[in-house]
Amino acid sequence: MDRITSRKNPFIAQLRALAADASLRREQGCFVCDGTKLLGEAADNGAEILSVLWKEGGAAGEIDCPAQFLAPADLFDYASAMKNSPGPLFTVRMREEDAPGRIDSAILLENVQDPGNVGTVLRTASAFSVDAVVLTGDCADLYGPKTVRATMGAIFRQRVFRLELDELPAWLEKHGLPLYGAALSPQARDLREVDLTRAAVAVGSEGQGLSRELLALCRGEVIIPMDARSESLNAAVAASVLMWEMTREKR
Amino acid sequence: MDRITSRKNPFIAQLRALAADASLRREQGCFVCDGTKLLGEAADNGAEILSVLWKEGGAAGEIDCPAQFLAPADLFDYASAMKNSPGPLFTVRMREEDAPGRIDSAILLENVQDPGNVGTVLRTASAFSVDAVVLTGDCADLYGPKTVRATMGAIFRQRVFRLELDELPAWLEKHGLPLYGAALSPQARDLREVDLTRAAVAVGSEGQGLSRELLALCRGEVIIPMDARSESLNAAVAASVLMWEMTREKR
Repeated sequence: MDRITSRKNPFIAQLRALAADASLRREQGCFVCDGTKLLGEAADNGAEILSVLWKEGGAAGEIDCPAQFLAPADLFDYASAMKNSPGPLFTVRMREEDAPGRIDSAILLENVQDPGNVGTVLRTASAFSVDAVVLTGDCADLYGPKTVRATMGAIFRQRVFRLELDELPAWLEKHGLPLYGAALSPQARDLREVDLTRAAVAVGSEGQGLSRELLALCRGEVIIPMDARSESLNAAVAASVLMWEMTREKR
Repeated sequence: MDRITSRKNPFIAQLRALAADASLRREQGCFVCDGTKLLGEAADNGAEILSVLWKEGGAAGEIDCPAQFLAPADLFDYASAMKNSPGPLFTVRMREEDAPGRIDSAILLENVQDPGNVGTVLRTASAFSVDAVVLTGDCADLYGPKTVRATMGAIFRQRVFRLELDELPAWLEKHGLPLYGAALSPQARDLREVDLTRAAVAVGSEGQGLSRELLALCRGEVIIPMDARSESLNAAVAASVLMWEMTREKR
């Protein structure tokens, strides 16, 4: 395995650039992951691993990939977006988004900007067998290092769609899904009173909630009942409780 | 209002030290918060606000506190643990922990080290009217800036107890609460089949789960059923789904 020793090595530069730049990720069709847990999930789920950078004195493992390199700890840390990662860093090909297959349930996020929340929603959707996560508006990039890390491997399993608002009606129609919006409005119905077993449910940003444009596409609004003094839940928690209820009767 | 202009000002030094040092917080019996949202929650919930530092060109507001100061933006940023906070920074007296009152439901966290997760659990507990959050083992400090921020004000409302493992049995006994542990073990029962309406439920760290010592105190183990390929949920999500189920029939 080749040992890299210079910060000027093009692979080191590529790792840093891919971690920092969402448009470069899209242009190159690949993204960076960190750690043996994600590496194992990538391999188990048939993701195409393009290159691996191992850290000297860091985590060890074996993976089927022709482009594998080794770096001293300080150079590895320079390449990594995380502090004190045991490694490895590796690049993975993005999957096609519009994989075929029936979708009976979807959670939709609008303008959820925190990458940890977006990643956590993927992780929960995968755990609760929600068929699709839909990202619309200005959400955190799916392939950013913090998002990927928060998915804990669900990025390699969970079906995710990025759709503009004006593409949503056709997508919902295609899958025969009614859309409900999580809202704190007086007309919102207790989520336990609405049949969400075959539906898409939308969650907005913590500060703003769902946009008027998105609410206009909804068949109805649902609310997670809570204490009067609480104004809201964390976006990933709200989405997770909704997904739990959406799938609660199915298991 | 006095204007502070020097990094050597003792109030600036105190704000930085309180944000960084959990033992100093405990010694002084106070902690630092950031932002008008938390300031409003502190005032609304009768917290004792000790001092306020406003940022020039930042957020404005009015609060009943004799010790209020103003700082230029760069000095404020130096004092704050957050990036680009509009302010204000303020210090608050910690509450007494063992407030009297009946406790019918509790969520217990063991070794949950992520401050965002601990804060989010407080936020959800408050929203779902879970009477107590119990922290045991090596959890993130309740009064650290990231924890406080993630509570979104629930830190001023939610009853929280820090207990050593050997104090737990007496505490549970006093409140007449059976303890259940969230676990992925074969003997764990589906949480929907266990009566959790009057109970304490424990959640462990994502990596390790609950300790054997804690599981030994449990009446039983419960599991949130999930897809076979998923190994776990985010700790705050798991706790939130558990709290949702604990209180689901009560509303």
